[in-house]
Amino acid sequence: MTTKQIEESVEFSPRFDENGLIPVIAQDVKTGQVLMVAYMNKEALDSTIKTGYATYFSRSRKKLWKKGEQSGHFQKVEKILVDCDQDCLVLKVTVDAGQCHAGYDSCFYRALKKKSDKQLEFIAEKTYDPEKAYKK
Amino acid sequence: MTTKQIEESVEFSPRFDENGLIPVIAQDVKTGQVLMVAYMNKEALDSTIKTGYATYFSRSRKKLWKKGEQSGHFQKVEKILVDCDQDCLVLKVTVDAGQCHAGYDSCFYRALKKKSDKQLEFIAEKTYDPEKAYKK
Repeated sequence: MTTKQIEESVEFSPRFDENGLIPVIAQDVKTGQVLMVAYMNKEALDSTIKTGYATYFSRSRKKLWKKGEQSGHFQKVEKILVDCDQDCLVLKVTVDAGQCHAGYDSCFYRALKKKSDKQLEFIAEKTYDPEKAYKK
Repeated sequence: MTTKQIEESVEFSPRFDENGLIPVIAQDVKTGQVLMVAYMNKEALDSTIKTGYATYFSRSRKKLWKKGEQSGHFQKVEKILVDCDQDCLVLKVTVDAGQCHAGYDSCFYRALKKKSDKQLEFIAEKTYDPEKAYKK
């Protein structure tokens, strides 16, 4: 397919990278907050579509992980968006608990301070205790 | 730094991948809409911080591109967020025109149809004419 065809097509043909992965943004369908970014391989994407719950591919552990399988903090997928060149996805998700393993609603809990290129500031507070959620 | 240090630190230490790139999500600061995803190398990030306007690294053209340099559709950066493990950024941006080169406000103008794993549907309409914006 040409670039123009990919951009104007109604055929879903996600483009996985040289490692077989596609970046995926999970966005809270209600608030619009970007919750996290992770990767899917084809199997993870198929599982996500089939089950209606987000499943990713862990690059560090090199295996599928259904988001929430350990913490209980699942992502119910309401809609899957794809970008113009079909090499990135947005999942609009419904969540009922914090999504970052560090205890925050979103992984993006820090921002660069104004007029600094080095200093971060926290822009969110922890909403759950990861030590309790991630029980051994 | 340990993982925990990276997660709890107020030191901005973005982690570029093996190609020297970090994925960046541009999000409309007013509407929360995810506009596009692109990549930055260190030089692009430095330029973005310094100028206050988003500059990316084009993987296809292998060079820096200030978003809007051709179309006039710039991204004024209001805030730069970083995720827990500092390998992804969110730019909260102010825009005054469509951000997708295909003529849409956002690159994510299509979604997978309910109960389909193949069929997309358009969820947005074009808001500008790319042929006019990208004049030769």
